[in-house]
Amino acid sequence: MQKAPLILASASPRRLALLREAGFPAPIVRPALAPEPRLAGLAPGEMVTALALAKARDAAARSPEPGAVVLGADTVVALDGEILGKPRDAEEAGDMLRRLSGHRHAVYTGLALLHAGRELVRREVTRVYFRELSQWEIDAYVSTGEPLDKAGAYGIQGRAGVFVRRLEGDYFSVVGLPLCTFSEMLKELDVELL
Amino acid sequence: MQKAPLILASASPRRLALLREAGFPAPIVRPALAPEPRLAGLAPGEMVTALALAKARDAAARSPEPGAVVLGADTVVALDGEILGKPRDAEEAGDMLRRLSGHRHAVYTGLALLHAGRELVRREVTRVYFRELSQWEIDAYVSTGEPLDKAGAYGIQGRAGVFVRRLEGDYFSVVGLPLCTFSEMLKELDVELL
Repeated sequence: MQKAPLILASASPRRLALLREAGFPAPIVRPALAPEPRLAGLAPGEMVTALALAKARDAAARSPEPGAVVLGADTVVALDGEILGKPRDAEEAGDMLRRLSGHRHAVYTGLALLHAGRELVRREVTRVYFRELSQWEIDAYVSTGEPLDKAGAYGIQGRAGVFVRRLEGDYFSVVGLPLCTFSEMLKELDVELL
Repeated sequence: MQKAPLILASASPRRLALLREAGFPAPIVRPALAPEPRLAGLAPGEMVTALALAKARDAAARSPEPGAVVLGADTVVALDGEILGKPRDAEEAGDMLRRLSGHRHAVYTGLALLHAGRELVRREVTRVYFRELSQWEIDAYVSTGEPLDKAGAYGIQGRAGVFVRRLEGDYFSVVGLPLCTFSEMLKELDVELL
């Protein structure tokens, strides 16, 4: 098994925290510089893998480290097939949370791993069930500011944890990085991180 | 709605961290003093609610704070109906992880909330699917010491996150405190924490 450093092609503090909490060595953080390509018309599952791969390739092109593994990831929330991105403002955040209240939605995360000329791409889909939220709860949550930088206007690892009645799939994928799939991809590449 | 302080009848640092991350005010930590009663012959779901209630009552009896809410909780791992407690040593931890490898198990958490003469008790069951673990992975995980103080010999929020292929239910219940159920119980008591 080869030993390799990890380059994380993401600026997400949550992905970095997940890697640390799962015991992986600290990666080199090198977010993609190119603006996210517009991928209108793609289904959520296709979009996240395309964006994860684009981010990983962008970072890899600027990575001189020999033998490094480059990780790209992208996460979106989809409700009835419609993608909910990051809300523009508090009003849109409230609208998204009202739509999620009492319903099931899907969280898609795409992962791309680049190593020694190989490109592995995987996706993970997790079903998340919100309980009914009162307008008071939605307003209180939006006022914390937490929803504003998050796809679907919530952070499951933060104050929105109390909204989640049930999930089916990978919790860590909802946070932004499916750890089990990531570890399996490293095995497939026959690489151990250092 | 009444405002009340929370008394946490548990010494678990993970339960305390979950409350903080979900935005609840810092509780008064007052673990039960009495040894856990032996409850041989109970099914896992009955055992966790009985132990959660026993812990909450023990702490409540030593709590002079007027109008406080007292929270007791207990979590166990069950495989094919058999309860897996905290492993005695590294060898037993390895045995438990070998049994969990590639299989589905159940995590039961009981919650008891005591307030103003009322006692609410709930339980949560979550199904957790481990991927296949190699002996090398099990040995490496056991050597970190993380499994030794945990029911079922793993911590999903730590290095064992990479072992979990899928779950069905409440992630936070597997960590030790089902946040959604807890928030619903507070609503039922018509109490807001301060």
